[in-house]
Amino acid sequence: MNFNTDLAEKAGENLKKLREKRPLIHNITNFVVMNYTANVLLAIGASPVMAHALEEVEEMASMAGAVVLNIGTLTPDWVEAMIKAGWKANRMNIPVILDPVGSGATTLRTDSVRRLINELSISVIRGNPSEVLSIVRKESGTKGVDSVHNVDEASDTALALAQELVVTLAITGKVDLVTDGKRILRVYNGHPMMGLLTGTGCAATAVIGAFLAVDNDTVTASATALAYFGLAGELGAEKAQGPGGFMTASLDALYNINDSSLKEGAKILS
Amino acid sequence: MNFNTDLAEKAGENLKKLREKRPLIHNITNFVVMNYTANVLLAIGASPVMAHALEEVEEMASMAGAVVLNIGTLTPDWVEAMIKAGWKANRMNIPVILDPVGSGATTLRTDSVRRLINELSISVIRGNPSEVLSIVRKESGTKGVDSVHNVDEASDTALALAQELVVTLAITGKVDLVTDGKRILRVYNGHPMMGLLTGTGCAATAVIGAFLAVDNDTVTASATALAYFGLAGELGAEKAQGPGGFMTASLDALYNINDSSLKEGAKILS
Amino acid sequence: MNFNTDLAEKAGENLKKLREKRPLIHNITNFVVMNYTANVLLAIGASPVMAHALEEVEEMASMAGAVVLNIGTLTPDWVEAMIKAGWKANRMNIPVILDPVGSGATTLRTDSVRRLINELSISVIRGNPSEVLSIVRKESGTKGVDSVHNVDEASDTALALAQELVVTLAITGKVDLVTDGKRILRVYNGHPMMGLLTGTGCAATAVIGAFLAVDNDTVTASATALAYFGLAGELGAEKAQGPGGFMTASLDALYNINDSSLKEGAKILS
Repeated sequence: MNFNTDLAEKAGENLKKLREKRPLIHNITNFVVMNYTANVLLAIGASPVMAHALEEVEEMASMAGAVVLNIGTLTPDWVEAMIKAGWKANRMNIPVILDPVGSGATTLRTDSVRRLINELSISVIRGNPSEVLSIVRKESGTKGVDSVHNVDEASDTALALAQELVVTLAITGKVDLVTDGKRILRVYNGHPMMGLLTGTGCAATAVIGAFLAVDNDTVTASATALAYFGLAGELGAEKAQGPGGFMTASLDALYNINDSSLKEGAKILS
Repeated sequence: MNFNTDLAEKAGENLKKLREKRPLIHNITNFVVMNYTANVLLAIGASPVMAHALEEVEEMASMAGAVVLNIGTLTPDWVEAMIKAGWKANRMNIPVILDPVGSGATTLRTDSVRRLINELSISVIRGNPSEVLSIVRKESGTKGVDSVHNVDEASDTALALAQELVVTLAITGKVDLVTDGKRILRVYNGHPMMGLLTGTGCAATAVIGAFLAVDNDTVTASATALAYFGLAGELGAEKAQGPGGFMTASLDALYNINDSSLKEGAKILS
Repeated sequence: MNFNTDLAEKAGENLKKLREKRPLIHNITNFVVMNYTANVLLAIGASPVMAHALEEVEEMASMAGAVVLNIGTLTPDWVEAMIKAGWKANRMNIPVILDPVGSGATTLRTDSVRRLINELSISVIRGNPSEVLSIVRKESGTKGVDSVHNVDEASDTALALAQELVVTLAITGKVDLVTDGKRILRVYNGHPMMGLLTGTGCAATAVIGAFLAVDNDTVTASATALAYFGLAGELGAEKAQGPGGFMTASLDALYNINDSSLKEGAKILS
């Protein structure tokens, strides 16, 4: 395939800006991935903070370049904190990114995601196809989960869903699909080993958050972030003999990839 | 020693079934080991989920092949969630595994373990000798902790305790002992380096959970799971120069061991 | 520089004692670093426990060689648990160490740190310059954060602050500064890669806790612990190609450094 060279260049530019600006990324995320997410954000050049207390989320969010909300291991009080942090971010024009972990699996998760989307202005939602499609009620015109079998077939559904939700969707899988309801970008970077390490999806969401802190275009920010994260997965998998070695090698790759190697390795199609 | 070849074969079969079925393992576990446990479950071929909200534990448990309860970093509200998840699992004949981390160390832990055992039907309890023996009240006929110095001497005590609690006990140490009060199996796999990495005991419990999802016999499921986890520890330690390298190398070993290499490496005595 | 040989010898002695005594270190710490902190404590030869329930923190603290309080990811109920654990430790003359993660960034954090310092007798506070300086109210005579640009210039301010707070301060940065308001020690061990791994500061605090369990002198305990942790960082960085490899290599180094190699590698100035 002939990948888009402008978008590859944009990926490199975004990474360069990120490392100059070193934005604070405020995460309200799940217990499983907090450590790994923080290490990923440090490796890419951002400055991570995890804070969920109702008493401090507004102050923390107001200092951030982006706010990342992730509903894995959620409880209702954490959703309140997400709402509060998200409101503050919205009022200050700080981008808010949502990872609907497990949405569709339980009522609590699906309802919490819908509430966050209703009460907040979300810039990007990053999830797998079933998580993203669970957001829409069955009565809606959008086709349901069962009708979509992979990210390639999902284009029409994703476009309609992004329009309905007024949000940019970053739907990740073998190929990642990014759409704001008008444009569609596809990202071909990545490696199957990423599915064998917990938290790679959540970390991809956080990397999108960091890219949003330096790129106002939610579609290019998401696609270039996913290209970068996927490229690190490819390089990490080359050196790894399993998921343990992959964890360390892919963190090293995130750290060692620079703007020019990202420009060369990014595989984005428009 | 001449290890049992039937049980070694059973270990290989269980691993093969596990990788075909890829069961969802629902964990309500402690903050320290959530990430590592999820990575271990992914490496062996299971599908981990961590969820503790009262609002969703029943839904999550009902989808699981096994429910793993672990009281490290417990608070009373988490115990309520464990009870709720366990009840649901019991009603649906989904196996429930308990890891009594630190039972005997504080009243909260000992009491919580006793309550979980009283209110739920537990298939397997996995712990070290002092944790397991702390479960029995001093007034009971079972000999106390002080009387048991290692897992080899513990056979009679363990048999009596398993009968009293009507549960399968997987007591881990230099040699692991598994008993349901009638049969006793011993597992000789493992490496001292496992004691230098936090969460290896908790992860062993989760691996037993995954094996219970494919093997109804609690004794063989536990022993074969411990043989597999111990073998990965042996292989990981060969490549490691310390606990950091051991963490990644043993995860890689869990991933790379297959049914035939497990069959060759399992050291179980009946 | 000619580093102090007596203090290098003291570092070796402390490590030797630690590995003989294997003290229990009770941590009430943040979700991000629990796993890594436990692994660091195991690697150095201590015995970690994480416990935060109000119902058990007193029992747990009473068994510990040191209690480590860390306010990352804090909520008000966790501060109550810290107070309760700290009181118990104070009554039993067990040292209490505080890590004021993010103090100065939000009101909740700054206020919580001040409350912990007011209500407890803290042996050592370990933080970066801005965290430590945020503790003092602006009205106090101590110069504020803005006036201190690095740890080398901070001597006078640190001395005055330690006297005012009646505590030993371990202020870490390119060079670490330890003072009880009378003596000042500087530690030159360390590597920039430590800043690229989340939780290295928190783990350094826990290592100081472990050294306090074997050395009553808060100044030498802190400085020798930081020399040890920094030396492991140096050795880990030599082998690493990024933060992933650094995590495992520095854990291995903590495990492999012994009293004589620490004596040789410690770089402490009095």
